[in-house]
Amino acid sequence: MRVRPRLALLLLPLILGAAAPAAAPSEYRATASALRDDAMKGTRAFEIVRSITTEVGPRSAGSPGEARAVEWGVRTMKALGFQNVRAEKVTVPHWDRGAESGEIVSPWPQPVHLAALGGSVGTPEGGIEAEVVQVPDVAALEKADPATVKGKIVFINKRMERRRDGSGYGEAVVGRGRGAAVGGKLGAAAVLIRSVGTDRNRTPHTGGTRYEENGPKIPTAALSNPDADLLENQLASGKPVVFRLKLGARLLDNAESANVIGEIPGREKPDEVVLLGCHLDSWDLGTGAVDDGAGCAIMMEAARRIGELKQHPRRTIRVVLFANEEFGLSGARGYAEAHAAELPKHILAGESDFGSGKVWRISSRVAPETLSAFDALAGLLAPIGVERGDNEAGGGADLIPMVPARVPVAGLSQDGTEYFDWHHTSNDTLDKIDPKDLDQNVAAWAALAYGVAEMQGDFGRAPEPTRAE
Amino acid sequence: MRVRPRLALLLLPLILGAAAPAAAPSEYRATASALRDDAMKGTRAFEIVRSITTEVGPRSAGSPGEARAVEWGVRTMKALGFQNVRAEKVTVPHWDRGAESGEIVSPWPQPVHLAALGGSVGTPEGGIEAEVVQVPDVAALEKADPATVKGKIVFINKRMERRRDGSGYGEAVVGRGRGAAVGGKLGAAAVLIRSVGTDRNRTPHTGGTRYEENGPKIPTAALSNPDADLLENQLASGKPVVFRLKLGARLLDNAESANVIGEIPGREKPDEVVLLGCHLDSWDLGTGAVDDGAGCAIMMEAARRIGELKQHPRRTIRVVLFANEEFGLSGARGYAEAHAAELPKHILAGESDFGSGKVWRISSRVAPETLSAFDALAGLLAPIGVERGDNEAGGGADLIPMVPARVPVAGLSQDGTEYFDWHHTSNDTLDKIDPKDLDQNVAAWAALAYGVAEMQGDFGRAPEPTRAE
Repeated sequence: MRVRPRLALLLLPLILGAAAPAAAPSEYRATASALRDDAMKGTRAFEIVRSITTEVGPRSAGSPGEARAVEWGVRTMKALGFQNVRAEKVTVPHWDRGAESGEIVSPWPQPVHLAALGGSVGTPEGGIEAEVVQVPDVAALEKADPATVKGKIVFINKRMERRRDGSGYGEAVVGRGRGAAVGGKLGAAAVLIRSVGTDRNRTPHTGGTRYEENGPKIPTAALSNPDADLLENQLASGKPVVFRLKLGARLLDNAESANVIGEIPGREKPDEVVLLGCHLDSWDLGTGAVDDGAGCAIMMEAARRIGELKQHPRRTIRVVLFANEEFGLSGARGYAEAHAAELPKHILAGESDFGSGKVWRISSRVAPETLSAFDALAGLLAPIGVERGDNEAGGGADLIPMVPARVPVAGLSQDGTEYFDWHHTSNDTLDKIDPKDLDQNVAAWAALAYGVAEMQGDFGRAPEPTRAE
Repeated sequence: MRVRPRLALLLLPLILGAAAPAAAPSEYRATASALRDDAMKGTRAFEIVRSITTEVGPRSAGSPGEARAVEWGVRTMKALGFQNVRAEKVTVPHWDRGAESGEIVSPWPQPVHLAALGGSVGTPEGGIEAEVVQVPDVAALEKADPATVKGKIVFINKRMERRRDGSGYGEAVVGRGRGAAVGGKLGAAAVLIRSVGTDRNRTPHTGGTRYEENGPKIPTAALSNPDADLLENQLASGKPVVFRLKLGARLLDNAESANVIGEIPGREKPDEVVLLGCHLDSWDLGTGAVDDGAGCAIMMEAARRIGELKQHPRRTIRVVLFANEEFGLSGARGYAEAHAAELPKHILAGESDFGSGKVWRISSRVAPETLSAFDALAGLLAPIGVERGDNEAGGGADLIPMVPARVPVAGLSQDGTEYFDWHHTSNDTLDKIDPKDLDQNVAAWAALAYGVAEMQGDFGRAPEPTRAE
């Protein structure tokens, strides 16, 4: 059911002669503002991240850690006062890293730090030993003469740039996603990439790689940035560089996992849903603090604070801890399928999955005729340093399967300056998080979610997305 | 032979009525200043560190890497134009890390990142599994009731403080040096320490531990700081925490290594020596960039620039790349023994072994009656941001065996704010070094060494040291 925003509200700024963004309607403004300001004084979000990183830690799809994460999600949501807490089963792939190592054999032997990319096949037990051929990026590899690559270990030496909006990631991650597929077709023995990360630590960045259907599958791994420098320096000598790679990675049988869901039921329209998402899984190397313990803590704490109000908002706030975002969006696809009939009543969805940095921008993807209503909500976040973005929000990977249902989306952009120092590494640990940054995220999501759940009218159906986020 | 500084020079400032530090005597001032200023414009020091980290890498005592480092030292010194280049054999212990791992078994199982401390014995093949007992520091462990420790894994959870002068190290390193010895006497099964380091990376800090003669030897390792946090957080639950430790560490047969030495022979008094030291070995985890590739590069480049002058200074400048500083000062002891007859003619010795940070202070340990001559030299460094310290310089670990001969010492304090982020970890790699910082170090040592080698008079014999440095 779709309710058009009341014409009077839309016209109110004009009537009042205001040029500024529409004022937040009085129906939710006071309470949303109070939620925002109270959260800025301190929340439980950091303690929630402490809990999941301490009591669960690594939780990649199909692993024992993931099973413990589901238990953690259910018991933590119940302890925080959520209602209708449940684990909705989904099937996930189960990739296991196994033991792995790499070394430069000649001209100057040295061990290196590397990590297989998620989904990589393993090497034969004795490893692969071959000469290294360096290329600057995947585009160059695609143009390479197969004769120069055949039987070699390709090294894609693309550096990621540090930027607040994390846009350096998209430029660099191509090598991780497609390097092995492209190299395999050219007859390469394996593909190494420079880590897709902005740090200078001996902590390689993993992340999913994708082979082509029926294409060759060759082993692929990321070198830490200092190790990529080392390989680059040895190659700069002009001498042939021989590398030995051993990966114990393998794909096991699919496993059972679950999306963990909890709700703050709406007082008037409990069937209308404001969805706050994050993902419960992490890569296997770290304890999943910034990716995505932080996001889950932010969303759980934002909803918990709304649930503690004397009066619940009109609509239901549903927090979804999605299973297996990292290695194929299993939970997100399962959710969209299981809740297909309900998606038309998903009034707005948002995901927090970009670490723990402060929110600096709020974007939307809502029916254009409802933009002034969204602007009013966005205005609530201005006092905590959040500017208004455009209406082309992606919103988060786990929201992608809801795109066909045109579920409206809010995207809160976080400061990603440091995020890619830790992302997908063993260094993704609790100490990387500033509790005050989490509080500001909670403040933003709590005010926004409350406003949407309480407001008259809705955001119609969203236009097609133009970008992922 | 000891020459008293000329009285006239000592009195010069008084004669001229100058209250400021004595002006650098004209005999070396112009050339020393030019060496200083030229080095500030750019040196080869960074390229020397690039060379040793790329072509050698890890080089712990007794390892194949150390043997390659000796070859590197000889060929590099020759290539840089040093004379009398030789490798003077010394015997070194050979400790090998082997495979190692650690995990929290309960209440919440998680793998951790740890590194055996240098010299640690290994565990039985299946590892040691025991409950963890936490203490804040070694002092607390010494007072512990043996009944609370017996059969347990002791966790010494002492944090190191970040300071420019690195003084937090001395306070924290006690646990690394003595923890296992103390714990062993109380019947502990093993000792874990929080890494002695200021970083928050998943890169544990190794470093030597010392058992007592005839005392018990129990395995000991350092957790990375994030892993120490994790263990601390699990312990904070109040539940018993069980840990499993597997160390493959063992002491192998002694090996042969060498101090690598090269000289810029003096034009008038070639038997009088100004010694510039560093250490050639590194711990096994990193590539030995800041510890002590940087120090060797600084000293080699400082001396090389002096050697390129149209006229060598009056005394000989001798660069010594000491073998095995990290695990027992083998090279330093060997040098002091082999060169015992020569030490009375060591006019001054200095060592660079505190990373790559800028020099901010120059201290001395010289005969008090020669202080004004040292002050004049120190004044040469004021324009590059170096203040005058006291006359109680330690000078560097490799200078300790020269203390009985009372060799005068210069100590150049480097900015150590970041040094202990990388020290003794896998993260000790080339990227941690700013070439401009190395240039400033080269400028300081080149000006100082030239001045000492060219000056009239000497610094007598040094007083007893009051501190190590």
